[in-house]
Amino acid sequence: MKVNASTYNVHVGEGVFKALEELLASDKYKNSNIYIIADENSVEHCLPILLDEVESLKEAGVLQIESGEENKNLQTCIDIWGALTDGNVDRKAVVINLGGGVIGDMGGFVASTYKRGIDFINIPTTLLSQVDASIGGKLGIDFERLKNHIGVFNNPQGVFAHAGFLSTLSYEELRSGYAEVIKHGIIADADYWKKVKRTDLESVEDWDDIIFRSIEIKNKIVLEDPTEQGARKSLNFGHTIGHAIESSFLGIEGKHLLHGEAIAIGMICEAFVSYKIADLPLNELDDITDYILALYGKQDIDISDEEGFMNYLKNDKKNQAGETRFTLISRVGNYLVDKQVSQDLIFEALNFYKKER
Amino acid sequence: MKVNASTYNVHVGEGVFKALEELLASDKYKNSNIYIIADENSVEHCLPILLDEVESLKEAGVLQIESGEENKNLQTCIDIWGALTDGNVDRKAVVINLGGGVIGDMGGFVASTYKRGIDFINIPTTLLSQVDASIGGKLGIDFERLKNHIGVFNNPQGVFAHAGFLSTLSYEELRSGYAEVIKHGIIADADYWKKVKRTDLESVEDWDDIIFRSIEIKNKIVLEDPTEQGARKSLNFGHTIGHAIESSFLGIEGKHLLHGEAIAIGMICEAFVSYKIADLPLNELDDITDYILALYGKQDIDISDEEGFMNYLKNDKKNQAGETRFTLISRVGNYLVDKQVSQDLIFEALNFYKKER
Repeated sequence: MKVNASTYNVHVGEGVFKALEELLASDKYKNSNIYIIADENSVEHCLPILLDEVESLKEAGVLQIESGEENKNLQTCIDIWGALTDGNVDRKAVVINLGGGVIGDMGGFVASTYKRGIDFINIPTTLLSQVDASIGGKLGIDFERLKNHIGVFNNPQGVFAHAGFLSTLSYEELRSGYAEVIKHGIIADADYWKKVKRTDLESVEDWDDIIFRSIEIKNKIVLEDPTEQGARKSLNFGHTIGHAIESSFLGIEGKHLLHGEAIAIGMICEAFVSYKIADLPLNELDDITDYILALYGKQDIDISDEEGFMNYLKNDKKNQAGETRFTLISRVGNYLVDKQVSQDLIFEALNFYKKER
Repeated sequence: MKVNASTYNVHVGEGVFKALEELLASDKYKNSNIYIIADENSVEHCLPILLDEVESLKEAGVLQIESGEENKNLQTCIDIWGALTDGNVDRKAVVINLGGGVIGDMGGFVASTYKRGIDFINIPTTLLSQVDASIGGKLGIDFERLKNHIGVFNNPQGVFAHAGFLSTLSYEELRSGYAEVIKHGIIADADYWKKVKRTDLESVEDWDDIIFRSIEIKNKIVLEDPTEQGARKSLNFGHTIGHAIESSFLGIEGKHLLHGEAIAIGMICEAFVSYKIADLPLNELDDITDYILALYGKQDIDISDEEGFMNYLKNDKKNQAGETRFTLISRVGNYLVDKQVSQDLIFEALNFYKKER
């Protein structure tokens, strides 16, 4: 299966490795050096499978970096730029990002800025990166504790999503990625939302179908609005409050939230805001809240420092002229962008989450 | 006068400041914060003129950095990104680069990567940046002693070239910028070349005409080939050997060459190579050599370390698969790209330069 994403294709399911082999065998890359960027996890669990399946990667260089969001920073970029420079890597070279969102975002940024840009290919290995980060062209690194603060928009030459890699993930990581799948249903497709809810995460038989449908939804939105002037903002549902929650947990020793766990909380809160000011029917708010709480459980969020929490919210890239803008839903499957929400309502929503069940 | 450069305009001569005022007053920038990036020289000599002419810039923030190629690096980017972050600068903000090539290249790169890209405008203040660096979308910084090694292609929202700023330059800086004017004549326009040769640099009456024609030539080439797959390589004439000479001088205490001074040497050497393998007529080689030597004098270049010099050449971004590619001329006004040149011929050309007169 493949999805056409303007200048490149996203391949899913059977035949992904064959499609990758064909791309690498094309005239364009005939004399190109290939460098695989990976972390210790993808080197251990995914690289052997990849090398076994794709003959032409046997000679590729491997640049291993340390895993973790805390390494998605300029210093790691400097290390990779330095390795490419020391290897006399020229403009015809191609970089393959083998890993989750950190590898894809940062590897893409490094490739897009090395000698003003060399080609890169994404092989996402987590559910989160397969259904979200690896497509859409958002690249970057964290800077001064702000997520993806430095970066560019640029597309890969191809994305190859192999569901087999998901078996190397923990249940928590899988569930974290699933938050974006849930979001795709809620903002764009009520039927998909029904299917998503019925799926038992611990015994999924056909990941390919889910990955494919999520990529289709995201891709359609991104093609309509690549630089996030309008439609693309729909993908921010759950992410305005979710990112602030994620940031607020970063400050607490030993209490790390995965991205999707924070977005799950954000989706409940933003559904509540949607119920309050965007006519979301009460039964749909209940439906979203019940399902997400059942799947993710409840986190003990601390919102006593209102000002601190609002600072996290205000640093969001989506904001303009100091105003916090939200993406809301009027029904499951229908979004509204650029909605102003008062600080009072934001905390009413957070308290709604805290009090549920 | 203005030149249309696909997505933006380049303004030259009378009315540049009025055109800038109009751009800043457009709906797009109605609520935008404006930040001027400048160095101590442009802050002293150019900023007062700009603020006097453009009312809407009175409230703009000024980010002052230290002048010099040695500061065109990641650390300065980190300082500017940090200042923008601390100022809570949002995506609607616009950056104005007021200065020479260093400010334009680095300020454009910083703007293009801050929050995945905010708008920027160029106000080039040197001849070199007015006729060359401020248009064409090549942005970046130096990395590990390699020029423009990290960067992106991205266009400004407008370029405003005010010849009045040139009166603040030394003769050497003016002459350095003039090397690109000479190049434009040699690669693209034999009539312009005649005019360029007749011009007395110390008493130019109408810089606007020269700036305008050079921008027209460069713009036409860039529009034809924005990402340097073919035609744009013509702009590299003189720069393959010129960059290597520039790099080799960086290592010598107290012997600094300006960019144009190195390119002048490169143009003589590459004209000689053109005479040897691209049928450039001898009288045209003589014409180019005589004129450039008369204007720039002769530098004492040290080419005894052949291997060292070849390493500088090989690090050129234009190279592919380890091969050094040259842009040559078959006549003044006609270029040829991607020509392979042997190491022997490169040193024959360098010795030709050393022995002339």
